[in-house]
Amino acid sequence: MNAAGVGSPARRETADVRDERQLAWAYLSRVVLGPCPALTALIDSVGVREAARAVRERALPPVLRAATERRRELDTAARDLEMIRDSGGRLITPDDAEWPAWRMLGLAQLTPGRDPDGAVPLVFWVRGGRDLSELTERAVAVVGARCSTGYGDRAAAAMAGDLAVRGWTVISGAAFGIDSTAHRAALAVGGATVAVLACGADRPYPAQHDRLIARIAETGLVVSEYPPGTVARKHHFLVRNRLIAALADGVLVVEAGLRSGARNTVKWARRIGRPALAVPGSVESAASAGCHRMIREGEATLVTGPEDVLAEIAPLHLPLTAGSTGADRLGDTESRVLTALPAVGGRWPHDIAAATGIAVAEVRVALVALDLAGMAGRREVGWYRLSRAVEQDR
Amino acid sequence: MNAAGVGSPARRETADVRDERQLAWAYLSRVVLGPCPALTALIDSVGVREAARAVRERALPPVLRAATERRRELDTAARDLEMIRDSGGRLITPDDAEWPAWRMLGLAQLTPGRDPDGAVPLVFWVRGGRDLSELTERAVAVVGARCSTGYGDRAAAAMAGDLAVRGWTVISGAAFGIDSTAHRAALAVGGATVAVLACGADRPYPAQHDRLIARIAETGLVVSEYPPGTVARKHHFLVRNRLIAALADGVLVVEAGLRSGARNTVKWARRIGRPALAVPGSVESAASAGCHRMIREGEATLVTGPEDVLAEIAPLHLPLTAGSTGADRLGDTESRVLTALPAVGGRWPHDIAAATGIAVAEVRVALVALDLAGMAGRREVGWYRLSRAVEQDR
Repeated sequence: MNAAGVGSPARRETADVRDERQLAWAYLSRVVLGPCPALTALIDSVGVREAARAVRERALPPVLRAATERRRELDTAARDLEMIRDSGGRLITPDDAEWPAWRMLGLAQLTPGRDPDGAVPLVFWVRGGRDLSELTERAVAVVGARCSTGYGDRAAAAMAGDLAVRGWTVISGAAFGIDSTAHRAALAVGGATVAVLACGADRPYPAQHDRLIARIAETGLVVSEYPPGTVARKHHFLVRNRLIAALADGVLVVEAGLRSGARNTVKWARRIGRPALAVPGSVESAASAGCHRMIREGEATLVTGPEDVLAEIAPLHLPLTAGSTGADRLGDTESRVLTALPAVGGRWPHDIAAATGIAVAEVRVALVALDLAGMAGRREVGWYRLSRAVEQDR
Repeated sequence: MNAAGVGSPARRETADVRDERQLAWAYLSRVVLGPCPALTALIDSVGVREAARAVRERALPPVLRAATERRRELDTAARDLEMIRDSGGRLITPDDAEWPAWRMLGLAQLTPGRDPDGAVPLVFWVRGGRDLSELTERAVAVVGARCSTGYGDRAAAAMAGDLAVRGWTVISGAAFGIDSTAHRAALAVGGATVAVLACGADRPYPAQHDRLIARIAETGLVVSEYPPGTVARKHHFLVRNRLIAALADGVLVVEAGLRSGARNTVKWARRIGRPALAVPGSVESAASAGCHRMIREGEATLVTGPEDVLAEIAPLHLPLTAGSTGADRLGDTESRVLTALPAVGGRWPHDIAAATGIAVAEVRVALVALDLAGMAGRREVGWYRLSRAVEQDR
């Protein structure tokens, strides 16, 4: 299997094997504590159980030995899984149907040597009952200054609230300021929201947002690539930002000072092909200086309201892969999904699954394959077939 | 002679001939009342006196007959010249050394059929004692909403004032709101400012700005392509905007509603190769909506202060001409001016004139020729020679 997991539906395995694989994922997640492209490559090559065995036995190339040495003897996998369950959560791995493989495509294509922190996460430790793929099917990241102003809070609330009402999931980092305003605005309208943490999902940070994070878990998801109990370190926040960008269709920065972490999230967004958007403000406000600089330097597109945001993010921006192929390679599932797509308007995966009898997870994988083949696209109302595909289908 | 007048120094003529030519220019200006590419072409081809005779005698092709029919018998040239003199002004024509030929290059290159309103003006009727070429040597247009807000007025005043202190002439349209704020800010710091009117230069519009316009004429210039006494019509404002753009190195919009005339000025700026800049503001303010749209649609670059403005406008943006040539065609004057240019830092025309003994008007023409030949450039501190020119000079 490959790290992004595209086109590799979960294997049908015995419960024992599944448990064993889950323990292996949990173990490796604890050992590397964050992105580790060399380990991802090893798992791609030999499978997760074999990779875990190699790490335990130190049967590794030097680069991986260094990365795993410190905690390889610390096998707390069973306890970690229990801890996440105790906090009302679970571990999501590439073995699971809800693994958001298509969301990870951009990260999977980064060059590990140049972006060591940009690797596809091994796993997601989550709190909350929602399906991660479904929840991030249409999603916008709303991030910004911790020291936001009244203006920024109003803009963040108005835009996140409006997008949530329209069915877009609001993704953010649960920080003070713009982040929490965006989460709260989505919750206030009964919309969906996802918090991506730089610490364990069971360990609310900042502590003052304990209650907010619990509310997010009730109706949305609290997500982390770090095992339960992990304390957030400075570097974790920068690495976490790539997941905020990857899980969303675009990154909206509402306010940002010149040294804001939001610029880091925008950098990840650009690196993996997600539109980056910024809200302007007064030139007299330091809280807007970072937004202005990003707009001026072409790093972000100026947006003034939800309509502007949707114009940028509703069309899907999948990264082009070298192996993108045409209709000649379409499998049976892709062909049936393609037939179910309208040329006018759009249709969402659940609807397509109901119409075709194909599992929704497989529908999603098929849609990504069709998009990469240039035969399907996404607009605000759902997926549609491109005219090129219509011709080929005749 | 050609309309832009580049490289055609004023002829040495008898006073009588000069007077006769000036009367011809004044007569034609009154007949067409604004840009008339067909007349400009005729003057280019047969000279101004012959063109005036042809118009008087109706010895014209149909297109020009229609454009001149209504007022061709209305020869008020002598009276118009008297009127402008009475208001402390004068007529500037392409015969004069101060004619800003290089500023008109962009307009001269527009396609008359597509941009009939974009013709090089026949003449400038001006009030004020300053030399028009000298005053617009380094100039920035600051325009914006008539219904400006306190925020917009502060931004306009801060930026126009700062640019004026640094020696940049502030050009605007003397309208309510941002325009007058920009003029006043330049005056307040003892800087230079130019008002380009859509009516006769002797006829302050709006009337409430009578005193402001008089003050501008005292230290700067009040400029119009319309003869004295002309009443501003709606169309005149749109046509006037091309002159605001052409006389400046760039157009800065401080506030603009969605239907602001500032967008028209920005369109002219883009058409003739001048940078267009816009100041962002609150997304809650209708007075910034036009700025945001221009930034979002790539029509203007976001700027937050004078440093941003200078980064965009200090390097000269001359329109590329088809006939741009290299060093092999340099005349004696160009060679001497080139020799006087530093490779590091910069030098202004007056200084070059003093050092070389060449008249400043000729220095300016030579600098434009050197720029178009890719051998000289302009930065904030003045003109400099490009390394390519240094090599060729060795």
